[in-house]
Amino acid sequence: MVACAAGLVKEGNETMTRLVEYADASPEVRAVYDDIMATRRIDWINNFWKALAAHPPTLKRIWENVKAVMAPGALDPLVKEMIYVAVSVTNNCEYCMHSHTAAARAKGMDDAMLAELMAVVGLANETNRLANGYRIPVDERFRNP
Amino acid sequence: MVACAAGLVKEGNETMTRLVEYADASPEVRAVYDDIMATRRIDWINNFWKALAAHPPTLKRIWENVKAVMAPGALDPLVKEMIYVAVSVTNNCEYCMHSHTAAARAKGMDDAMLAELMAVVGLANETNRLANGYRIPVDERFRNP
Amino acid sequence: MVACAAGLVKEGNETMTRLVEYADASPEVRAVYDDIMATRRIDWINNFWKALAAHPPTLKRIWENVKAVMAPGALDPLVKEMIYVAVSVTNNCEYCMHSHTAAARAKGMDDAMLAELMAVVGLANETNRLANGYRIPVDERFRNP
Amino acid sequence: MVACAAGLVKEGNETMTRLVEYADASPEVRAVYDDIMATRRIDWINNFWKALAAHPPTLKRIWENVKAVMAPGALDPLVKEMIYVAVSVTNNCEYCMHSHTAAARAKGMDDAMLAELMAVVGLANETNRLANGYRIPVDERFRNP
Amino acid sequence: MVACAAGLVKEGNETMTRLVEYADASPEVRAVYDDIMATRRIDWINNFWKALAAHPPTLKRIWENVKAVMAPGALDPLVKEMIYVAVSVTNNCEYCMHSHTAAARAKGMDDAMLAELMAVVGLANETNRLANGYRIPVDERFRNP
Amino acid sequence: MVACAAGLVKEGNETMTRLVEYADASPEVRAVYDDIMATRRIDWINNFWKALAAHPPTLKRIWENVKAVMAPGALDPLVKEMIYVAVSVTNNCEYCMHSHTAAARAKGMDDAMLAELMAVVGLANETNRLANGYRIPVDERFRNP
Repeated sequence: MVACAAGLVKEGNETMTRLVEYADASPEVRAVYDDIMATRRIDWINNFWKALAAHPPTLKRIWENVKAVMAPGALDPLVKEMIYVAVSVTNNCEYCMHSHTAAARAKGMDDAMLAELMAVVGLANETNRLANGYRIPVDERFRNP
Repeated sequence: MVACAAGLVKEGNETMTRLVEYADASPEVRAVYDDIMATRRIDWINNFWKALAAHPPTLKRIWENVKAVMAPGALDPLVKEMIYVAVSVTNNCEYCMHSHTAAARAKGMDDAMLAELMAVVGLANETNRLANGYRIPVDERFRNP
Repeated sequence: MVACAAGLVKEGNETMTRLVEYADASPEVRAVYDDIMATRRIDWINNFWKALAAHPPTLKRIWENVKAVMAPGALDPLVKEMIYVAVSVTNNCEYCMHSHTAAARAKGMDDAMLAELMAVVGLANETNRLANGYRIPVDERFRNP
Repeated sequence: MVACAAGLVKEGNETMTRLVEYADASPEVRAVYDDIMATRRIDWINNFWKALAAHPPTLKRIWENVKAVMAPGALDPLVKEMIYVAVSVTNNCEYCMHSHTAAARAKGMDDAMLAELMAVVGLANETNRLANGYRIPVDERFRNP
Repeated sequence: MVACAAGLVKEGNETMTRLVEYADASPEVRAVYDDIMATRRIDWINNFWKALAAHPPTLKRIWENVKAVMAPGALDPLVKEMIYVAVSVTNNCEYCMHSHTAAARAKGMDDAMLAELMAVVGLANETNRLANGYRIPVDERFRNP
Repeated sequence: MVACAAGLVKEGNETMTRLVEYADASPEVRAVYDDIMATRRIDWINNFWKALAAHPPTLKRIWENVKAVMAPGALDPLVKEMIYVAVSVTNNCEYCMHSHTAAARAKGMDDAMLAELMAVVGLANETNRLANGYRIPVDERFRNP
């Protein structure tokens, strides 16, 4: 990764994505960065937030959503991160696969858990197509439990 | 649902999907049905298996995969079912959404857990597109943890 | 299915999709209908074409594409129909699954072939996610054969 | 591609995916590798299998599925590979597009066949959306052939 | 549609989705309903909001997002609705296709505009696969404009 | 990017995609290239067309489709390009995201418009899953407007 002036980062031949560094951020953006770091108890901001910061309303809105949805609740945060990985793998989002796998590991996911998660994701993507392709009618007892 | 002769089931205007009832099943298929019921400790076979049974090699192969992948392991079965629901919702598989939500509920998922699962699925599908659309480079520390 | 006046067809509670019947079609649309029937050696027009006919430029454009792409060539029409089914199952397009499965059967696909096609589709959807999820690097010999 | 010690392979900036080389494989994994090479009559193991080998139960399970599903049957192996390519292109799985295109070529697919396959895939992805978007009702004769 | 007691609605054979009617809503939910009706200048609540209301935090969060994102801005609301339709057609979300097509029509979209929107959606879904399938390298001038 | 002989272009480790340069093109292909440049009032051919040119029937067919669909009509070209970007982001087509974002910018899209487009795309991908996952019945007034 080559860091250029003006916060532009180039990855190999990758198009330059404008990333807003903390040092260059407006007070509005820094407030969000501070909240991310405080909430997550970390001391750095990842590229996802730096990229969204180019449009501060989006940065704020998405952070508020993530903060609310990923907080501990009826599901604990590790389970939530694993669900996030499952969706990201299904959709082939490279960035999200990396960031949420890292988050899941930080919350306790080990290699064995990841392998089983991947196995479920693969199998579900398979049986989803079999169920759709065979036009299987939903059982009465599933409709009216 | 209207049950016709010969195991054909018609759902409303739905195309007839051939479902193999236990009573009409070959010994090979019955063996799989028995294993499903024994493994799951239930006394009935759902339409997914009855539809696959029209091609016994597929029935056997898929059941063996499901049995292996969904067994308790590093992840417990409830978490696996919730991951299955997450993928099925992402892919909009009606049958799988019904059957795996039912399975998850049977394993302990309540309404609050389902609502949070759906919230994560929705949010992940959103941020997957933002990350891809903004061409966000993966942070160095995610690549080389 | 209930046929209403003015070519509106209602399927159960389904929203009314405007379908242009031959009898009500403009000369421009009839010309396309005639070409479809002549090319396919059939005597009826299916709902897909009747729906597109509400926008004649789209009807003509899509028919010209289908006629060109699905003609016999390096791949024979049956193989092309099976590829069409595979994509339609992957994408869960109900209409296309029905129409192209019918077309494939008309061209020689039997139940055993369909079952194997479905098995490949399911497996491919599974391994696609495993390959993406595990971030597997493409082998040098695949890049430079 | 840079080969590192301990079987870690780094592709450009790509995250290190753990690939299990034959020389470092357990007897259990080697048994699967041997079966792959014997079945396919080749003398090498590709990265997909080497990556799955990090979780031997998944390696075995997926290989058994691939062996069964891709064997000659009602459909011949070349047709099966082309269906695999079609799904992989639809889902944008880079690894699978490469590996299955290579497999299809090895089984007889030439450039003209590949171009026609791609044309069908593109067209099907288009008409799938038109059919869904226009909410086209499935013709009665497709439901009850 | 059959309206049952307790706000359960059954559509044909459709599973009962719990919809929270205004009359049965808590003050918290009614506040959101009121804001929706005031913002949109309408006098009714659609099923999407009534379904989300079963989990009030989700109802509030999603409404706040929709209100912010769909407001007039650099893009006018009609363009935003058409983009919403385009995504919903691509993903085959039946509910969203209906509701956002209705919203777009209310904001000025006519049949000719919808037909052209659908044509672009279909073509984009086609060329997306051709570009991915042919592994076309991004032109230098697109990466560094 | 490294230009090789015979029109093969290699991008980093990217597989060689055969791109047909104007200088090496047949009269048939040059005719299409000329039409593209004349229609778009540009003096260069991008890699998408150069790649399709390896199969001239596909080059011609796709160009004719693009020319027809993207022409000014009930929707203006800028709106059409933004819809194209929305679909390409949803499907994660890297090439198309780049080329159509460039085209949209050339037609007047600025950063603020792009940010709002991305916000709608993300939100639509989220609510599509919520609507599908909650199995929300389509309101009667949407079905029968």
